[in-house]
Amino acid sequence: MEVIDFTLVYNSLSFAIATFGASSVFFFVQRSQVAPAYKTALTLSGLVCLIAFYHYLRMFESFNDAYSLIYGQVETSGSQFNVAYRYVGWLLTVPLLLLELVLVMRLSKEETFSRGMKLVFAAIIMVILGYPGEGLLDAGQLGDRLMYWLLAMIPFIYILYNLTKRLEDTILKQPKNVQGLVSKARWLLIGSWAFYPIIYLFPMINPDASYVNIQVGYTLADIVSIGIFGVMIYMIAQRKSDAGA
Amino acid sequence: MEVIDFTLVYNSLSFAIATFGASSVFFFVQRSQVAPAYKTALTLSGLVCLIAFYHYLRMFESFNDAYSLIYGQVETSGSQFNVAYRYVGWLLTVPLLLLELVLVMRLSKEETFSRGMKLVFAAIIMVILGYPGEGLLDAGQLGDRLMYWLLAMIPFIYILYNLTKRLEDTILKQPKNVQGLVSKARWLLIGSWAFYPIIYLFPMINPDASYVNIQVGYTLADIVSIGIFGVMIYMIAQRKSDAGA
Repeated sequence: MEVIDFTLVYNSLSFAIATFGASSVFFFVQRSQVAPAYKTALTLSGLVCLIAFYHYLRMFESFNDAYSLIYGQVETSGSQFNVAYRYVGWLLTVPLLLLELVLVMRLSKEETFSRGMKLVFAAIIMVILGYPGEGLLDAGQLGDRLMYWLLAMIPFIYILYNLTKRLEDTILKQPKNVQGLVSKARWLLIGSWAFYPIIYLFPMINPDASYVNIQVGYTLADIVSIGIFGVMIYMIAQRKSDAGA
Repeated sequence: MEVIDFTLVYNSLSFAIATFGASSVFFFVQRSQVAPAYKTALTLSGLVCLIAFYHYLRMFESFNDAYSLIYGQVETSGSQFNVAYRYVGWLLTVPLLLLELVLVMRLSKEETFSRGMKLVFAAIIMVILGYPGEGLLDAGQLGDRLMYWLLAMIPFIYILYNLTKRLEDTILKQPKNVQGLVSKARWLLIGSWAFYPIIYLFPMINPDASYVNIQVGYTLADIVSIGIFGVMIYMIAQRKSDAGA
């Protein structure tokens, strides 16, 4: 690993710790500013950031155990940089992110439950199917990596279909002052999630650079899909609270 | 590194940890004393200090890994003192500081959003443009350092222009009892921010002493622009709350 790669992974992991720690506090503190109907959505935003904060702390620790910068050289200790933390984290955060969006729309209790359950179930299957392929980085294993990618794409497309087609009429039932914002939040989620399957395929494009690219790529994608998405959910909740909706 | 330099950097980093930890708690606790319209500004003040607290903790740790004072001599361990933490921290704190000022003015939702977004965007660009030049300290690299300085000055001047010229009429719309205070907070921000580009140029003035000067200089500038600025925002929020504005 080059010094610049070490610095890039090191600083992006620390940046994620600070971002998720701060945003978690933000959502919990600002929860008092929204109407009771939206407090659960804010709680979930805070929890998702807290879970991400924890996993980034662990990843940073694991990275520092594996590599160190001594006299301008990157040295390896032999311990492994455990990137499974990402999948363990996503297993919790991905379903919760989808629930945030469903909750902030304030559908009927039955609809919230049925839509929520389907999305949560699909999200869990997606993360589980993607995991076994993540570790396959050698040239001979890329075929298997592609297979797991394809399998995980099935629930992924099911989720996208639900967020686009199925959610359309629900968005039209939202108060006028937030329809645009709800639609933007949905597209931010779809847009930022689209990065993950692309990053997953990096080793097929450039095997040498892929390790660092994957780490920095996933980190940036997490900041958008968890942190910035959470801020949009907060803005929707606040506008709807102000409008008494 | 001389013993006096070691002590100066060591103690100023620890001073910053104590200052930011305490001020973060102050803003979160005192948030209950201001009207609902100003609570978000107080939350951001608390978060900015919390983010600074985290990064000073990391810098202190990194400094202690790199240097130690043994039998009256400064010894180096070979690990690097990672000063990138400053930039990673500023990437989060600088946009939030500008948002604090915009939020405490209580403009219309649209104006808050449009002014806020422009300033946040300019602040992020400024920090990103400054970063690559910060590590260039050798005599032969000072030309490149100057180039990054000039590039970062473009968004910096844009922000100053927005805080001076563009904010003038907005300040005149503030309640009489806080107009002076809002204007002072703005000038404190501008005044303390002016230190950063000057500190950045230290290596051109005195290459030998610049390392310590930069570290101590940035630390003091952070305390003024984050901590003292936050206290002024709090005073504005409190006076406006008392006046029912």
